[in-house]
Amino acid sequence: MNAAERYAEVRAATEALAAPLSAEDQTVQSMPDASPTKWHRAHSTWFFETFLLAPFAPGYDVFDSTFGYLFNSYYDAVGPRHPRPARGLLTRPSADTIRSYRHHVDREMADFFFCGLPDDLLPLVELGLHHEQQHQELLLMDAKHLLASNPLQPAYQAMNPPTAPAPPRRSWRSFERQVVCIGHDAATFAFDNEQPRHEHLLADYEIRDTLVTNAEWIEFIDDGGYERPELWMSDGWSVVCTGNWTAPLYWTCVDDRWTQFTLHGPRAVSDHEPVCHISWYEADAFARWAGCRLPTEAEWETAAPPPADHSAAALEPNNAENWYGQVWQWTASPYTPYPGFRAASGAVGEYNAKFMVNQHVLRGSACITPPGHARRTYRNFYPPHARWPYTGLRLSR
Amino acid sequence: MNAAERYAEVRAATEALAAPLSAEDQTVQSMPDASPTKWHRAHSTWFFETFLLAPFAPGYDVFDSTFGYLFNSYYDAVGPRHPRPARGLLTRPSADTIRSYRHHVDREMADFFFCGLPDDLLPLVELGLHHEQQHQELLLMDAKHLLASNPLQPAYQAMNPPTAPAPPRRSWRSFERQVVCIGHDAATFAFDNEQPRHEHLLADYEIRDTLVTNAEWIEFIDDGGYERPELWMSDGWSVVCTGNWTAPLYWTCVDDRWTQFTLHGPRAVSDHEPVCHISWYEADAFARWAGCRLPTEAEWETAAPPPADHSAAALEPNNAENWYGQVWQWTASPYTPYPGFRAASGAVGEYNAKFMVNQHVLRGSACITPPGHARRTYRNFYPPHARWPYTGLRLSR
Amino acid sequence: MNAAERYAEVRAATEALAAPLSAEDQTVQSMPDASPTKWHRAHSTWFFETFLLAPFAPGYDVFDSTFGYLFNSYYDAVGPRHPRPARGLLTRPSADTIRSYRHHVDREMADFFFCGLPDDLLPLVELGLHHEQQHQELLLMDAKHLLASNPLQPAYQAMNPPTAPAPPRRSWRSFERQVVCIGHDAATFAFDNEQPRHEHLLADYEIRDTLVTNAEWIEFIDDGGYERPELWMSDGWSVVCTGNWTAPLYWTCVDDRWTQFTLHGPRAVSDHEPVCHISWYEADAFARWAGCRLPTEAEWETAAPPPADHSAAALEPNNAENWYGQVWQWTASPYTPYPGFRAASGAVGEYNAKFMVNQHVLRGSACITPPGHARRTYRNFYPPHARWPYTGLRLSR
Amino acid sequence: MNAAERYAEVRAATEALAAPLSAEDQTVQSMPDASPTKWHRAHSTWFFETFLLAPFAPGYDVFDSTFGYLFNSYYDAVGPRHPRPARGLLTRPSADTIRSYRHHVDREMADFFFCGLPDDLLPLVELGLHHEQQHQELLLMDAKHLLASNPLQPAYQAMNPPTAPAPPRRSWRSFERQVVCIGHDAATFAFDNEQPRHEHLLADYEIRDTLVTNAEWIEFIDDGGYERPELWMSDGWSVVCTGNWTAPLYWTCVDDRWTQFTLHGPRAVSDHEPVCHISWYEADAFARWAGCRLPTEAEWETAAPPPADHSAAALEPNNAENWYGQVWQWTASPYTPYPGFRAASGAVGEYNAKFMVNQHVLRGSACITPPGHARRTYRNFYPPHARWPYTGLRLSR
Repeated sequence: MNAAERYAEVRAATEALAAPLSAEDQTVQSMPDASPTKWHRAHSTWFFETFLLAPFAPGYDVFDSTFGYLFNSYYDAVGPRHPRPARGLLTRPSADTIRSYRHHVDREMADFFFCGLPDDLLPLVELGLHHEQQHQELLLMDAKHLLASNPLQPAYQAMNPPTAPAPPRRSWRSFERQVVCIGHDAATFAFDNEQPRHEHLLADYEIRDTLVTNAEWIEFIDDGGYERPELWMSDGWSVVCTGNWTAPLYWTCVDDRWTQFTLHGPRAVSDHEPVCHISWYEADAFARWAGCRLPTEAEWETAAPPPADHSAAALEPNNAENWYGQVWQWTASPYTPYPGFRAASGAVGEYNAKFMVNQHVLRGSACITPPGHARRTYRNFYPPHARWPYTGLRLSR
Repeated sequence: MNAAERYAEVRAATEALAAPLSAEDQTVQSMPDASPTKWHRAHSTWFFETFLLAPFAPGYDVFDSTFGYLFNSYYDAVGPRHPRPARGLLTRPSADTIRSYRHHVDREMADFFFCGLPDDLLPLVELGLHHEQQHQELLLMDAKHLLASNPLQPAYQAMNPPTAPAPPRRSWRSFERQVVCIGHDAATFAFDNEQPRHEHLLADYEIRDTLVTNAEWIEFIDDGGYERPELWMSDGWSVVCTGNWTAPLYWTCVDDRWTQFTLHGPRAVSDHEPVCHISWYEADAFARWAGCRLPTEAEWETAAPPPADHSAAALEPNNAENWYGQVWQWTASPYTPYPGFRAASGAVGEYNAKFMVNQHVLRGSACITPPGHARRTYRNFYPPHARWPYTGLRLSR
Repeated sequence: MNAAERYAEVRAATEALAAPLSAEDQTVQSMPDASPTKWHRAHSTWFFETFLLAPFAPGYDVFDSTFGYLFNSYYDAVGPRHPRPARGLLTRPSADTIRSYRHHVDREMADFFFCGLPDDLLPLVELGLHHEQQHQELLLMDAKHLLASNPLQPAYQAMNPPTAPAPPRRSWRSFERQVVCIGHDAATFAFDNEQPRHEHLLADYEIRDTLVTNAEWIEFIDDGGYERPELWMSDGWSVVCTGNWTAPLYWTCVDDRWTQFTLHGPRAVSDHEPVCHISWYEADAFARWAGCRLPTEAEWETAAPPPADHSAAALEPNNAENWYGQVWQWTASPYTPYPGFRAASGAVGEYNAKFMVNQHVLRGSACITPPGHARRTYRNFYPPHARWPYTGLRLSR
Repeated sequence: MNAAERYAEVRAATEALAAPLSAEDQTVQSMPDASPTKWHRAHSTWFFETFLLAPFAPGYDVFDSTFGYLFNSYYDAVGPRHPRPARGLLTRPSADTIRSYRHHVDREMADFFFCGLPDDLLPLVELGLHHEQQHQELLLMDAKHLLASNPLQPAYQAMNPPTAPAPPRRSWRSFERQVVCIGHDAATFAFDNEQPRHEHLLADYEIRDTLVTNAEWIEFIDDGGYERPELWMSDGWSVVCTGNWTAPLYWTCVDDRWTQFTLHGPRAVSDHEPVCHISWYEADAFARWAGCRLPTEAEWETAAPPPADHSAAALEPNNAENWYGQVWQWTASPYTPYPGFRAASGAVGEYNAKFMVNQHVLRGSACITPPGHARRTYRNFYPPHARWPYTGLRLSR
């Protein structure tokens, strides 16, 4: 698949994900951390317009000169921008206008590919497509949060519950003290934060083959997991108390039975599916309760298989035996630069580097991660209280 | 015009006001005090369904049993309700569904009128229609606030600026000490808070024939009105400082010229139009600066002519000589019950009575007040910091 | 008693009230609305220094030039000031230094009296003494709040509980429609807000002879008074819910028995004492529950006897039959200027006028009000949520 | 020096530090993160009472049974406690009572030492003394914050400014790739978080011999350091904007000259002294601006000399050439458990482990760190926005 084909495929995938959502659904922002669907569609388009078409495509006319202000996310180098918590006030431009915007940019990109987009811009195209894939995942996370906040509990997509999986194995894999190489160095694409590849000294450790399941999590709840401060980081315990946390996000207990809101609407919590929508604080407390700990990201990367090609995506996790395509897995590692890290130059250098504090690294990928987007070296990151991403855990000791 | 005709007319007016707004515009809530257009359309419909059709229309089927929860505004007696600040999260039901809801209720009401709605329910119909008219005004106020928050500054309705009015007269009318009768006692409709009619002793006073204009307000600004604490109530001065108030809401100063956002989009501030979108704090400070004071509501009611029938509505104020149909006029009177006041019984008794604290009375009516909705005895009320209603002032001394 | 004697007496009373409080007690600020004892002692002294000695006493040397900034309360005309919520950070100047400050100013005032303080300054002296008496009451209210916030629940002054009073009478007095004169016009001292004396038209009304008691309040609680929104103003209900109010301030229920914190330490709530430490919201809800209402301030002033001379002060209310010297009584009247009101000129004009919004008038006086400070025309005022003053109620209908 | 002598010495040092502070100074809490001096004196005493005397000293009588609630800091295992932000409300017990409390516990500890405190309790004594030394440093940090918040800017201790130091050398030391051992394993005391000693692989690096100075920091300011978002972490830039940061804490610029508040009162910022009172965000931004980075804690520990014995303490930093005894040095390392870390068992296990998130490690020690308290392996930690500790930096690359 050449760059133009890949471009067309990724861009179409975004529109397919937005299709089940009405213009109204696409406009509202359910919390400051989430963005409207419409905004994701526009912002990922703005990326191509701003970093490729405007500077490099001969004679390119900007679609609308106000969009630079409206759809810049956080690139200070590009100029001022609409404040993040106010993204949900933008009832105009309409979802229809955003569709036109996407068509315009896609047509111009197609022309640019056809007329000879210079090879040295291909990495920027690639970055734009990976960026768009990240926003595909965000689009679903954010839509889920919005729909969950509606008392009607509407489904993004109706679907019968899958067959309940069998209990996973729960075996441990052991590793001996060794110097490993961590990070990306292949010729293929990776974000700047996965580089440079570097040596790291690991002590002996064991890591579990399977993800922690809902059944295990219910055991934790039933054992007073959310009521025992000694299991928690001090900051985590504060959040538990002020947020009245008693279970993962989207879980509710009615008549002693746990239900969770999913993109298919409300469903019973299924025992042997991977637990999802937990914060780092909860993952860390669970691990302590289980007499284990979270793996470091180097331990995870050393133990993990490479991702299978193009696994079919689903909207909710269901297989605790997979390393990828289920839930992002919290690690013990704060998100910091690798030794020798250099941020990419120019505005795209703001992509990852300026978030390297107050976050923890997650590894693997989620069911809603676009096919082909996972890498063994991928470093996802969120602050320790975040629960609206598709987050779970794997134990280490 | 009989009740059924009047019902049809008022209900149609709401839909006409919503028509220029897209489904997206109708869904978003720009601040906790404002509600989405869609919500106003649904809530005013819910009023008829809940207080008339459900209890009294034989065999009435509720359109959707979830709407009672979603579209109750503040009637505690009716049951729990969706929290006010979360009204903007309701992307579902869609604006289209709300249209169907309105059609359903309107059809059922038409049947009910046709089949003999009992006479003793007519006052409740009348109340529902006045209630709906209030929401027509709120719909425009709230839409203006939403559109103003958009960096694109879109117009609700495009229109060329009107001819600038001539300067108004600024004469004073004098009244001598007297016992007056205040409040409503005719057979016609009035809200419970306008009753009972009662005696009130007035001392001598003068009141100005015309509204305070933008030119006068600019004089106040230029004389340091927003910078001199001695002109302000202590609470008002706090709001000025924390809110960085330097002019009425929606005013911006670019290159020494004042512009205001209107429902027709941004426009130059026109000298002889009535000032609009000021808080009680600002009205009070202006009056002090001018060596005058605000009239009490009894003074206003005594001096005011009755409203002309069915004045044609506009979207922005433009005539400082009118007592009605321009801007609501802040009075010196806190909103309290009249002597002998009794709230209406049942849930509709929550309509007015429970807001009789921390608010000031406004008299007259605004350009966006529906035709036929004004009364000389009408008591509108807002907290002293509110600026998004169409609020202005008239001086007294 | 001449002015110099009266000066000495009032000033000494302040020091007597502060005496039971340690330097530590006198320094801490338990909430932004309260001030440290030390600050009250200094601020009331600053009043005499700033408005009398500095401008008028020949050759007066300011005690410390920094005190103008530290101890100005809210007089914008006098210059900038230390922010109110930061008063509790002033560990320096020490309580000892404040004592020296008071001695210095008292000595200079004594000299000024002796050497012939001009007669036209006597009203300012009088104002300063009434001002100081107000701060005597605030000192006790604020100290009570501080001590109550201490888990040790220390008494300001140890004392055995008094004999429990007999149940009060609960009779009603009736008044017919009449034009009354309200406000102060004698040659004696009154604040500007009690003036001018003016006519007011009253309809028929009845007012209760006695204050509402703890026993009645417990009935209200037991009847679900704090759980029924229909009894409350909308804003009041919000405060009940967010503040988890279930009883007056300082009340706690242990093993089904109500205890209250008092300046004598914790004590059982005594049935026939006047209820104290309730907000306007609570007073209003109670009156509605009782099928009555709060009196207006004009009704109160018309019905009230004049205060007895120099009633002996106590620290807690204990007699429900008194109009004065027990608890301030909430009225239905928002605090607004009387017709024809003019604020005093100069900085002292900021004394009352700039607070005439968002407050309700209280009448009578409290057990901690200094002897001789009560007047039938006295207008005390607090915002409707305030509970730390000594506030109670009397019913009307 | 035996344990009893060391106990007496450390305990006396606390009292000496508190001596210049009045009872009022010792009572007030200037922000939620700071504690009153009196509280520090009581809490460190409570540690000995709770963990040594009460469980182990035969026949020990608790001094006051309420103190367990009042002076527990964060030990959930010990029971409920007074909320941290309310420590400043405790005007009682008085500073005098706390002195008695300390005498009581010291006398009982002396008896316990004399009568044969079991050897296996000596580590707990040692922990209590190190704990007390940490509170000695906190006492000074917190007192500085309180005094700085006073408009009078009082000195903790008057003292003439020292001779301005000469400019430091600014040379770099180089290290080659190697596996180092990090952490404490000697028989001497260390906190649990410094253990276990473990291997760590270091790449090549250089580290500067000297601390960053005020002169360098002024260069950073003058080059727009606080105005250029590209130098900052995203979270840091938020704090700069919302907190209006333009210089280190306690710095003010008057007439183009920088002044800083010190424990000796206000002083001119001296060029060649180490910069102090900066957050991690500022340290990180400075390093980026300088084309360098912060060292990791392993790099720091590898490069640092051991601390000299019993260096004399000062109240403000003045020598940029020292590794210890000036300012704590921010590292690039988030505070996480060492591989194989186990928290101490029992309540003292809450000492360090539950804070291992959202903090960064600082190395070295400060001028106000008690003599003998520094270690090469010492891991101090604060959240990245903290500025009131004595914090500075050293560059790496």
